[in-house]
Amino acid sequence: MQLFNTHKELIYEAVEALSSRNFNSVYIEDIKDYSDEEKESGLKAFQLRFNTDFTDLSVKTDEWVGEEVSPFLQTGLGIRYPVIDEQTLINNAKKSSNSWKNIDIEERAGILTEVLERLKDRFFELANATMHTTGQGFTMAFQSSGPHSCDRALEAIAMGFHEIKRFPEQIKIDKTSGNFSYSLKKTWKPIPRGISLVIACSTFPVWNSIPAIFANLITGNPVIVKPHPKAVLPLAIVVSEIRQVLKESGLKTETVQLACDTSANPITTKLAENPEIKIVDYTGNTKFGNYIEQLDKITFTEKGAVNPVIIDSTKDIESLIQNLAFSLLLYSKQMCTSPQNIYIPADGIKIKDGNVSFDDFTDRLQIAVNSIYEKKWGPSVMGCIQNDKTLKSVKEISMSLGKKILDNGSFKMPEYDSARTQSLKILAVDSGKQEVFQREIFGPMVFIVKTENTDKSIELALRGVNQFGAITCLVFCTDFMKSKEIEEKFNNAFVPVSFNFSGQAFVNLHTAFSDLHVSGGNLSGNASIVDPGYITRRFIWIGNRFML
Amino acid sequence: MQLFNTHKELIYEAVEALSSRNFNSVYIEDIKDYSDEEKESGLKAFQLRFNTDFTDLSVKTDEWVGEEVSPFLQTGLGIRYPVIDEQTLINNAKKSSNSWKNIDIEERAGILTEVLERLKDRFFELANATMHTTGQGFTMAFQSSGPHSCDRALEAIAMGFHEIKRFPEQIKIDKTSGNFSYSLKKTWKPIPRGISLVIACSTFPVWNSIPAIFANLITGNPVIVKPHPKAVLPLAIVVSEIRQVLKESGLKTETVQLACDTSANPITTKLAENPEIKIVDYTGNTKFGNYIEQLDKITFTEKGAVNPVIIDSTKDIESLIQNLAFSLLLYSKQMCTSPQNIYIPADGIKIKDGNVSFDDFTDRLQIAVNSIYEKKWGPSVMGCIQNDKTLKSVKEISMSLGKKILDNGSFKMPEYDSARTQSLKILAVDSGKQEVFQREIFGPMVFIVKTENTDKSIELALRGVNQFGAITCLVFCTDFMKSKEIEEKFNNAFVPVSFNFSGQAFVNLHTAFSDLHVSGGNLSGNASIVDPGYITRRFIWIGNRFML
Repeated sequence: MQLFNTHKELIYEAVEALSSRNFNSVYIEDIKDYSDEEKESGLKAFQLRFNTDFTDLSVKTDEWVGEEVSPFLQTGLGIRYPVIDEQTLINNAKKSSNSWKNIDIEERAGILTEVLERLKDRFFELANATMHTTGQGFTMAFQSSGPHSCDRALEAIAMGFHEIKRFPEQIKIDKTSGNFSYSLKKTWKPIPRGISLVIACSTFPVWNSIPAIFANLITGNPVIVKPHPKAVLPLAIVVSEIRQVLKESGLKTETVQLACDTSANPITTKLAENPEIKIVDYTGNTKFGNYIEQLDKITFTEKGAVNPVIIDSTKDIESLIQNLAFSLLLYSKQMCTSPQNIYIPADGIKIKDGNVSFDDFTDRLQIAVNSIYEKKWGPSVMGCIQNDKTLKSVKEISMSLGKKILDNGSFKMPEYDSARTQSLKILAVDSGKQEVFQREIFGPMVFIVKTENTDKSIELALRGVNQFGAITCLVFCTDFMKSKEIEEKFNNAFVPVSFNFSGQAFVNLHTAFSDLHVSGGNLSGNASIVDPGYITRRFIWIGNRFML
Repeated sequence: MQLFNTHKELIYEAVEALSSRNFNSVYIEDIKDYSDEEKESGLKAFQLRFNTDFTDLSVKTDEWVGEEVSPFLQTGLGIRYPVIDEQTLINNAKKSSNSWKNIDIEERAGILTEVLERLKDRFFELANATMHTTGQGFTMAFQSSGPHSCDRALEAIAMGFHEIKRFPEQIKIDKTSGNFSYSLKKTWKPIPRGISLVIACSTFPVWNSIPAIFANLITGNPVIVKPHPKAVLPLAIVVSEIRQVLKESGLKTETVQLACDTSANPITTKLAENPEIKIVDYTGNTKFGNYIEQLDKITFTEKGAVNPVIIDSTKDIESLIQNLAFSLLLYSKQMCTSPQNIYIPADGIKIKDGNVSFDDFTDRLQIAVNSIYEKKWGPSVMGCIQNDKTLKSVKEISMSLGKKILDNGSFKMPEYDSARTQSLKILAVDSGKQEVFQREIFGPMVFIVKTENTDKSIELALRGVNQFGAITCLVFCTDFMKSKEIEEKFNNAFVPVSFNFSGQAFVNLHTAFSDLHVSGGNLSGNASIVDPGYITRRFIWIGNRFML
């Protein structure tokens, strides 16, 4: 209970923020607010791991594996992780489940918040680990695996705390009917579903997994974390930190385990299909996500998405272009929230004093994109391509399918001569060429679709949304009634819309406590981080009755 | 908004009761509190319906069907209901969806509560309609379709109101990062999933359906109610009342529709599989329930159950026997909450000064059951068997499979010479005969299983629970540690336990606002009336963002 007392103000404030939906960033996202010492010691901690075995998990095994390759260095990190076979993982989880389930929700919340407070001191170690496994630029790697991840985890703790506190633990009921009366004690217990599996992806290993890990833990379920074999380190740090706090609290470290495998010998489906696994969280490609969803379990998925941009009109075309260019470039379009298809009417974009023609727009967008590459901070915005498969699939797209706007191959990453980079390819196509743009391209490829008019843009974008799912939709429109119509149509397809973004507000970014990430209502996934269902489906309310 | 203002105190109190879990019966369940005039006019309203067409729904059709037969009279009621083809039902629902979705949650809550307040004046009409379609005795028919149903519906309204009020409709966020600052308006909208289908059963047509109907409506979804062709009238009354209030409120009556069919020409699967149907609620047999659950839709099911009773020890054997006898007899064991398998150790039940032997217990239970038949109010407790299939399946069970404790055929129902009745059959079997008792028998058949000891009782009961699901579990045990163990084991199988019930507290009865009905965690169904997930899965939270 001590840890709850230490952190209770933080927890209560987080619960409050859930319903206010206000900006509630507990963990500071601005790198400038951190000291040089912090940065340096984080880097050093990361570098010390090269060519060593990751022993912080304190597990016994004879088998160690590791195949991480830095997309910046294109050399292996040489870090090896302990392998535990599937049945041992399950047995360990089973053995740990009672002790974790039986402690108070306050104690669980205290322990989990303590983990976040400790991770805070390792943000720069996490940043380097993330950078050199995912290919994210340094700032994004810092924010996504550090403060933003901890905010999301805290949100999951808060939602769990709120939901489990919803019903009283027990009450006494006196009932009289006619001449009869009796008293009952009633109790309500949130019973955890059972062992959970969190399957992470290679691009956002921590950000996408940590809400699930913490949602499972706060509701009392043991967790097996299955990292992508190419992006283990960031999660290994998180899992070892949780285990450390569990150990210090006198609880079983096996409440959270890391399930390492190799690309050659994957264990994901074996684990997912194990009947003891009751909950599966998954982030990754649509095909595997569909397989996960059809398992007879509680599943939470985030799959592929084709996110549209509809441009009808704007008050400030330059601001639009700058904002859009940045959104397209962020992490080389390897974000699930990145826009892909930009729909623009053939007769251009309405502005205050006239029109920006289609060609004028593509010219200006191309210039804006190129100018970011030339900025000192530009390459870091794009970062590297996480893996060769993504690179290859983007390279393979023929620019003869439409009008080439941009296609420049790789770009120079300062300080990293061997970095796996690919500059953004932009292709303009006619709306008739649906086979070209109505598909998901993960990585730096964008289509600008020339449509008859905005109504047609809406129609085509909706068709993509219904076929592939979407996590975001960015709309530029100054007409009130048209905006209303777009909002309604996309909302009815369960896609949220961001209108007229400019400056430092980017459609790619979803803020913890305020924005829900993925609606859960379209093909991009059935999870919504962190809506109430993200928590409540992980346990069952049981009401016992005792005659007094 | 007028109706919300009229009922807002009721609604706010109901929301409060959700979290207190206290007894909150808004609609009076004691028949004695109603006047003779109310009873008589309800009976008259019902009788006036014989051999007429049910025109209160005000739908146009050329086809009218009806095949209801009173289990008390075993003659047809002669009431015909309008048939609307599947596509028209869907089209109507689609056309009505916008108007219903777009009104405020307050207005929806007001309208739905008004419906309940009006149904209050028709409780006795509903009681007779329910009695003569389901076979329930008068008191149960009154309570189940009247006050208890309205309490459950109010609970669904309150939970919906609470969940939809969880997030603000809009907020303004000002964010500064570095030298940049901007303002966003964020809105949160609960978008209804779409057209919903509620498939009712023949034994509790209103009680089991009305929470789903109201849960769908409060969250903005149009509803198609598919009654069982043998139990239409109670739901027809409810649906026509909703439509009437919708009409008076200037809204589309097609927001709620009744989908009548015949046993020869069922339309349930056609409707359930229609891609426009997004939510399906179902109460009925396990086989069809499993089919519903595997549809790629949001589904809520309540299926079969094998509810166990474990008797280890008691402070008051006579009270135990009286309480258990009543629970077994209620509506001739056609309740989803009725106990079926009674597990008793071979060396009897521990009491204060010794033991009640197994044979002594079966003797006394048989006497207690028989004495209820002989009471003036007895036959009404049992009521009739809803249909011939149930009757046949109970009759067919051979009593030579074990030791016959009771097998008396039909019994006399006062005033109804032709009533379809069957007295409770009780068979004592050894624990080895699992093929006899490890199955669901819907209707008046009970097994008393002689086990080695209470540990074996627990083991066998859990096996049944895991194989067939259970909604209730009744336990008699005076040993604190043993009780704890049983509680934990059954709770871990997601089954709630009722301990040492006596007097007027019956395991069969789940109280609105206090008890959750079905845990949603075992094979008896995935719905829990009314837990938060019963509401939140019916809509999707969408957050739009607007640059200011």
